[in-house]
Amino acid sequence: MKLIRFGALEQEKPGVIVNDTWYDVSNVVSDYNEAFFANNGLEKLEEALKTQTFPEVDPSTRLGSCVARPSKIVCIGLNFKDHAAETGAAIPKEPIIFFKSTTALCGPNDDVVIPKNSEKTDWEVELAFVIGKKATYVDEANALDYVAGYCLHNDYSERAFQLERNGQWAKGKGCDTFAPLGPFLATKDEIADVNNLNMWLKVNGHQYQNGTTANFIFNIPFVVHYLSQFMTLLPGDVISTGTPAGVGLGIKPNPVYVQPGDVIELGIEGLGSSKQVAKAYAG
Amino acid sequence: MKLIRFGALEQEKPGVIVNDTWYDVSNVVSDYNEAFFANNGLEKLEEALKTQTFPEVDPSTRLGSCVARPSKIVCIGLNFKDHAAETGAAIPKEPIIFFKSTTALCGPNDDVVIPKNSEKTDWEVELAFVIGKKATYVDEANALDYVAGYCLHNDYSERAFQLERNGQWAKGKGCDTFAPLGPFLATKDEIADVNNLNMWLKVNGHQYQNGTTANFIFNIPFVVHYLSQFMTLLPGDVISTGTPAGVGLGIKPNPVYVQPGDVIELGIEGLGSSKQVAKAYAG
Repeated sequence: MKLIRFGALEQEKPGVIVNDTWYDVSNVVSDYNEAFFANNGLEKLEEALKTQTFPEVDPSTRLGSCVARPSKIVCIGLNFKDHAAETGAAIPKEPIIFFKSTTALCGPNDDVVIPKNSEKTDWEVELAFVIGKKATYVDEANALDYVAGYCLHNDYSERAFQLERNGQWAKGKGCDTFAPLGPFLATKDEIADVNNLNMWLKVNGHQYQNGTTANFIFNIPFVVHYLSQFMTLLPGDVISTGTPAGVGLGIKPNPVYVQPGDVIELGIEGLGSSKQVAKAYAG
Repeated sequence: MKLIRFGALEQEKPGVIVNDTWYDVSNVVSDYNEAFFANNGLEKLEEALKTQTFPEVDPSTRLGSCVARPSKIVCIGLNFKDHAAETGAAIPKEPIIFFKSTTALCGPNDDVVIPKNSEKTDWEVELAFVIGKKATYVDEANALDYVAGYCLHNDYSERAFQLERNGQWAKGKGCDTFAPLGPFLATKDEIADVNNLNMWLKVNGHQYQNGTTANFIFNIPFVVHYLSQFMTLLPGDVISTGTPAGVGLGIKPNPVYVQPGDVIELGIEGLGSSKQVAKAYAG
């Protein structure tokens, strides 16, 4: 299944995409949140789709984040060798993890807001996955049982906030609108091989990122296992798996950062595409 | 007011302490969560306490975290000069911030679980505050308007996970039970001067921490202002303001870490005390 959340900001309803048509499933699902994933929501929804008909949704409707606000967004840093190299970092011996504030979540095609005093707002096309059941000390061998599905994420990062403002990356990762998620959450069965998906990102039509999940340093089962040694992952939690080379910070000789009016487009094979227009904060 | 949450894990009800007696207010409050703080819950509860009577609660009842799971727990690192010195770190020029997984939250007197493979579980008595209304780009001058109240927090930290496992402190801060919060949330009016409170922590009766909030490097209004430049703080969010000297890591010549059976007691003037017994993970 392909799950979407559609409608105005903070009033999104759950829906599905079937054969490119959008359907409203809000009469059988309240939201794609912790309770949904914890209570076999995916199975129940799949059953309902076989036996019931649902109202169509105008596909020009705004999309929200494809899952409701989770308990946490955990990101894996430097999970592609080419990206580690471009940032001048060593290949990690074990995953680097950091949190993204969940207030950063937004719809896949919402404007990205360049924060006040930002000079270095950067992009990162990433594959995110969503936890399907509570995970504590999970073995790598059955770690995929804890994954509900996959989606596209742009892990926006303010590099000066992240790297030049006194330690810990969290400061540059959680600004509002810095986590456009979607267009849809693809359940696991939609993706034949999650370790072999092309991923790309363009700014104003120029392609900056062109990678593949075949280049993960740490793959998804290991990441689930690893994270679950340090914290409990809850149903609906979002884990973002890192970006390939081609971020603005890595461009030689001069880094390139997001400017107001820029159009950022990105996609992952099988997970659709998204587009954000950058605007300056105007509070 | 002094707000408590009482009852079995994940079934806590909201209550208040008035003159050392506990009352159940669950007929007028569903929980101390984002919606409660966002919708003038504190004012409404104060009114209700003037006009209604509430059932008493047996004070031997378990306490949960004094607020429901927030959207985020943000911590300020190295916010006391003496603690920065003992860890060998420089005095920060601006606040160091990091996230604690919200799955770490637990009751103030619950057992602290030493994670699997932990060798360096450490303590940190801290004053936490809770956000009362949505905060984005807040001025320092009126930042306290965004604070609902204060509570006691033990910011447990696994030092090997935090410092020796490849970057970013988040890895050692978010283990389950690493954030006992409470006993109660004191509303602002309960505390005459939040910048002049003694704080202490003992392990097995030996006093390791003996500090005062007078030694904050960055005080609460500045912290609210500062954080709100990087992310939106939501009602109910928990911000922990750092620990004074005396953590296990800083003990010379040999650091001291939490062992199964250890009894950790801590308190802050006006904010009560808490006690955790350490146990090994037994999954």
